[in-house]
Amino acid sequence: MAYRTTEARLDRDQALRERILACALQRVSAGGFAALTMQALADDVGIATGSLYRHFRSKGELAAEVFASASQREVDALAVQLRQPGSAAQRLREGLQQFAARAWHSRRLAFALIAEPVEPEVDEQRLLYREAYAELFIDLLEEGRRSGEFQVDQVGLAAACLVGAIAEALVGPLSPPARAARAAGHPSLELAQVSASLVTFCLRAVGAKESTR
Amino acid sequence: MAYRTTEARLDRDQALRERILACALQRVSAGGFAALTMQALADDVGIATGSLYRHFRSKGELAAEVFASASQREVDALAVQLRQPGSAAQRLREGLQQFAARAWHSRRLAFALIAEPVEPEVDEQRLLYREAYAELFIDLLEEGRRSGEFQVDQVGLAAACLVGAIAEALVGPLSPPARAARAAGHPSLELAQVSASLVTFCLRAVGAKESTR
Repeated sequence: MAYRTTEARLDRDQALRERILACALQRVSAGGFAALTMQALADDVGIATGSLYRHFRSKGELAAEVFASASQREVDALAVQLRQPGSAAQRLREGLQQFAARAWHSRRLAFALIAEPVEPEVDEQRLLYREAYAELFIDLLEEGRRSGEFQVDQVGLAAACLVGAIAEALVGPLSPPARAARAAGHPSLELAQVSASLVTFCLRAVGAKESTR
Repeated sequence: MAYRTTEARLDRDQALRERILACALQRVSAGGFAALTMQALADDVGIATGSLYRHFRSKGELAAEVFASASQREVDALAVQLRQPGSAAQRLREGLQQFAARAWHSRRLAFALIAEPVEPEVDEQRLLYREAYAELFIDLLEEGRRSGEFQVDQVGLAAACLVGAIAEALVGPLSPPARAARAAGHPSLELAQVSASLVTFCLRAVGAKESTR
């Protein structure tokens, strides 16, 4: 049987693929990767489950793509903030505040991106995106070192430490175990406290002078 | 058919289970969780693959158990170090140095435990063990705060930041991507540099006085 792939058909395929990804992101934002089942997603999109597999070979491949596009948005937002005018310390502070606020306002998604147990394909992406974040901090730390604002010997290592500290600070308060602890009567932190403590931790860690905090 | 479970049989089962776990840990130490296939493991142990499944329902369950026992060893070693006599800053410094050195000397295993993309069952364990590490740091930070050595508002948050910073500092230099970067001509860090930079980052971050570094 001859099979003619017209341009219109390719456009329709592309549009459907994007709609699938948008619906998938909605699911992950609401219930994490655990809520991203092929069956439920196909229902959301209004197609047969089999059609999903025409676009994504596996749940892992789909989850990795959702992860990458959501994470890229965060990397881009942080990059814009870190490249604002101002001192390096000020930009680090404001970058952290913005990052924490964004995570806070999409807690379920932030936890899904940072720490939810999930397919190895997503873990692979996590490693790549942690490198992308580290690259941003490397640039900022080098600037701050040149200007004398930061005291850092190994810029790459300090950047990795920042990435880890930020992720873990946010996984803590955002994670289901943390929510369970709060339900059991442990005190909950507010965004303002988390953000302020994270900023202090990070600025001190890179040797920013007290006056620039 | 009657089936008599004698004590001798239970002992044999337990001994075999432990041998399986020991062989599995050896595999992960040499090649990460990627090297832990049921087939290869059964060959190592000298049993049929089907027999493995009598002891572990799935590869994920087995991997999670290997992870937990290897991680518990690290948590215990760190706990001993952090509870030595001495000032809180000194114990934090020595705990970090020991942790980095242990990771450095078992790099493949350390990367497997901290960051290798792997089954969700292992990711679940990772979250639990990160909490176990955080608990150790919470105790130390509270001591250091009482003694005036550390300046930390939110002890739980700072502890989480430390856990994240340490993990990421070690994933960096230990990770396959980092090794690839080195192979491509980027400079490699030595244990002494990583350890010293990590100690400086963490002590500063918790507000330890310069003189105690």
